Amino acid sequence: MFTLPGKESGTPTTCAGPASTQDLGSSYGHCLEGECSRKPDQKLPELHGVGDPVMFSDSSYLSSRGRMIKWFWDSAEEGYRTYHMDEYDEDKNPSGIINLGTSENKLCFDLLSRRLTQPDMQWVEPSLLQYADWRGHLFLREEVAKFLSFYCKSPAPLKPENVVVLNGCASLFSALATVLCEVGEAFLIPTPYYGAITQHVYLYGNVRLAYVYLDSEVTGTDTRPFQLTVEKLEMALQEANSKGVKVKGLILINPQNPLGDVYSLGELQEYLVFAKRHQLHVVVDEVYMLSVFEESVGYRSVLRCFFLQDFGMSGLRFGTLYTENQDVATAVASLCRYHGLSGLVQYQMAQLLRDRDWINQVYLPENHARLKAAHAYVSEELRALGIPFLSGGAGFFIWVDLRKYLPEATFEEEMLLWRRFLDKKVLLSFGKAFECKEPGWFRFVFSDKAHRLRLGEQPPFSSPAQADYTKNLGGN
Amino acid sequence: MFTLPGKESGTPTTCAGPASTQDLGSSYGHCLEGECSRKPDQKLPELHGVGDPVMFSDSSYLSSRGRMIKWFWDSAEEGYRTYHMDEYDEDKNPSGIINLGTSENKLCFDLLSRRLTQPDMQWVEPSLLQYADWRGHLFLREEVAKFLSFYCKSPAPLKPENVVVLNGCASLFSALATVLCEVGEAFLIPTPYYGAITQHVYLYGNVRLAYVYLDSEVTGTDTRPFQLTVEKLEMALQEANSKGVKVKGLILINPQNPLGDVYSLGELQEYLVFAKRHQLHVVVDEVYMLSVFEESVGYRSVLRCFFLQDFGMSGLRFGTLYTENQDVATAVASLCRYHGLSGLVQYQMAQLLRDRDWINQVYLPENHARLKAAHAYVSEELRALGIPFLSGGAGFFIWVDLRKYLPEATFEEEMLLWRRFLDKKVLLSFGKAFECKEPGWFRFVFSDKAHRLRLGEQPPFSSPAQADYTKNLGGN
Repeated sequence: MFTLPGKESGTPTTCAGPASTQDLGSSYGHCLEGECSRKPDQKLPELHGVGDPVMFSDSSYLSSRGRMIKWFWDSAEEGYRTYHMDEYDEDKNPSGIINLGTSENKLCFDLLSRRLTQPDMQWVEPSLLQYADWRGHLFLREEVAKFLSFYCKSPAPLKPENVVVLNGCASLFSALATVLCEVGEAFLIPTPYYGAITQHVYLYGNVRLAYVYLDSEVTGTDTRPFQLTVEKLEMALQEANSKGVKVKGLILINPQNPLGDVYSLGELQEYLVFAKRHQLHVVVDEVYMLSVFEESVGYRSVLRCFFLQDFGMSGLRFGTLYTENQDVATAVASLCRYHGLSGLVQYQMAQLLRDRDWINQVYLPENHARLKAAHAYVSEELRALGIPFLSGGAGFFIWVDLRKYLPEATFEEEMLLWRRFLDKKVLLSFGKAFECKEPGWFRFVFSDKAHRLRLGEQPPFSSPAQADYTKNLGGN
Repeated sequence: MFTLPGKESGTPTTCAGPASTQDLGSSYGHCLEGECSRKPDQKLPELHGVGDPVMFSDSSYLSSRGRMIKWFWDSAEEGYRTYHMDEYDEDKNPSGIINLGTSENKLCFDLLSRRLTQPDMQWVEPSLLQYADWRGHLFLREEVAKFLSFYCKSPAPLKPENVVVLNGCASLFSALATVLCEVGEAFLIPTPYYGAITQHVYLYGNVRLAYVYLDSEVTGTDTRPFQLTVEKLEMALQEANSKGVKVKGLILINPQNPLGDVYSLGELQEYLVFAKRHQLHVVVDEVYMLSVFEESVGYRSVLRCFFLQDFGMSGLRFGTLYTENQDVATAVASLCRYHGLSGLVQYQMAQLLRDRDWINQVYLPENHARLKAAHAYVSEELRALGIPFLSGGAGFFIWVDLRKYLPEATFEEEMLLWRRFLDKKVLLSFGKAFECKEPGWFRFVFSDKAHRLRLGEQPPFSSPAQADYTKNLGGN
């Protein structure tokens, strides 16, 4: 059970919860819009069918689901506001907040902006301004299929008719949840995971997540921290079933967010066999497919049912579905009336994807080199400070173990530490937002310019010893 | 009750319906993607809560709602395919199908494309490629507020904080239905109306429409055909209540689609008083606000809660909500994660909206002159043929009365006539798609180049006498 912050109406909510309205209405910070948006010490609302009586009482103008949807915004808004009211800018606000929380690649705007302003991008023709195939223009789906065939190294060419283009991966999760699951059904997902998926499957679709909790400790047959095994999948599935929750699919993020790790081909195959045995859909989010910056990492695309949203351009609103199940493609396409992207952007994306010279000779080498350098910088700093972390050579982030800085292993302490970072003008993402079961893990996004990383690291790491460190953090 | 076309699986559906699977699977045509998408002789599925057992049986991979969502695509796809397989092109396919069905303004692509390719449009900066405020970039919401203040002649300046920007009006209907209504609740809407709203409120939101049926006959206190009165609103509301359907709001389209008419200020005020009396939300769709091409038409914006999607660029995916209810704005904004549009397009839209010289001195005068000329051409042709029609000097369409060409006043005959037009290579929209209660009305979109209009009109109107006409249509 959970309560809503009643800050707008000021009237008490009608539900009893572990914390008073007043408590919940206080100023929690949050990571940013594309990321975790929940208060870390609040549980997700008990999931229920839309239309059920709901306890949200702060706006009589909205439906019960409308009040819940608004709550997701309000709770995210608080952290967002904190950051945006005091955003770092090297000229205008050099003592502002450094954002190491939002997973965006800020290293290659120069390359992207140069490419996107070239003359071939400025094409406007009537068909781009008219209603088009909701799956996306054919010219774009053809380019996506070629692009994926090449970069996923598919054994046979991928087909444009299996491609659906949408305005981002959030939309794709929303549409897939709705067309694959009934209200209240669930997807399995290993934790820690990119927390925004919770709302993506829930807000429109009323679909829940059943967690496969992973540990940092390496025990039994595990060979590395937070390792996903079929045994753990089986247990989580059984547990969901025993609670009467019907599981319809498995969500995998590969490369993983926040772990920055990739699944081996063998692992992927095992997960797929597990899913087939239980007749589960497999949704593989491969957003970070081209952000594997360590050559030694043997990344393999699942080549089956996956998303693409690369180049780190979250503001461009572009994501794609590839599925060989035409029923799924068609049902998602039908919802694309609500997830369409401009014909002009579709044209530009096609131009970008077909410019293989630029991608291979300019963008990817430079991007990987910059990611690698930024990663090396941050990981060396962490090593020098004796702070453990995980990082698998992919993605924009490092999964940092700050457990030793928590006086007690609770999420309240994790939150306090997170807020001390924010007081010191560094915005991070805390582990609870990824449903990590162990308090004290944080995600550091390193895909930013060196001077920001330097500033971002300065305050917490200037005094590495725990006592000094926490004192230092708590000092202001 | 209704059945699904079982064409994909070939297996019989599990539900009993008035027509066999075979019948429903035959080749119905349809109007296009932005428009009516249902088979005219099929009723909308009995509306039910998501998660209820549903009769759609053709894909075991999808949820019940997924199968229904897919059905909306499949049924629309048939007409779409017919047209796209034989699309008219003056060079490549001069005997192809002329599309007078899709409501798009094809008259001003030259102006728009010239404007959109000017150097000020080619701006790319990091913030446009990053996650931004889901309500839309502030620079765009400021321009929208100024634009609307000016063109709606608002008594006080409209505020950027009341503006939410989305990827089109379909998304806006989807989001509003979800945040304002519980599952199964309804909006009142006068018919005939733009039929796609049915799916916009239903596919994600599971919200239904309660029809306020209007007649072409002028009786009682009516002064014109299809006149909406408060008396009719009251009756429809009572009827919905008596059936146990909770009505949460009223949808008005102004200028009207498909009537091409506008509501007077007095009428609008009456509707708002009615809504206030019953505590209903009022959603006013003002998509055609700037497409009032007859100066004598006294169009008034409601200045309250409305949409904007002008310039007739459906492919650009741009729509806005203006509401003074911050709860509604916030709840819709929260769903905008799924309805976002590219930062690059947001920038271009802001540039377009702020170029008041171009809008006032180039675009609007030229657009209105072209609309007026095209409208005059089509209406003169119709008059010469003795075909009655309605048209109020706004929008892209004329509402044409072909009732005298139906041997019987049934929707089956309407459909046969519609198909004869298609056989003659003219795609129109039939009245049933707008839930018109009288069979025999058709919507003709006139906002196209003269040579297409000429070709579009030639076959049906070459022999105006009824006998010849129907014979002629049936001849091929």
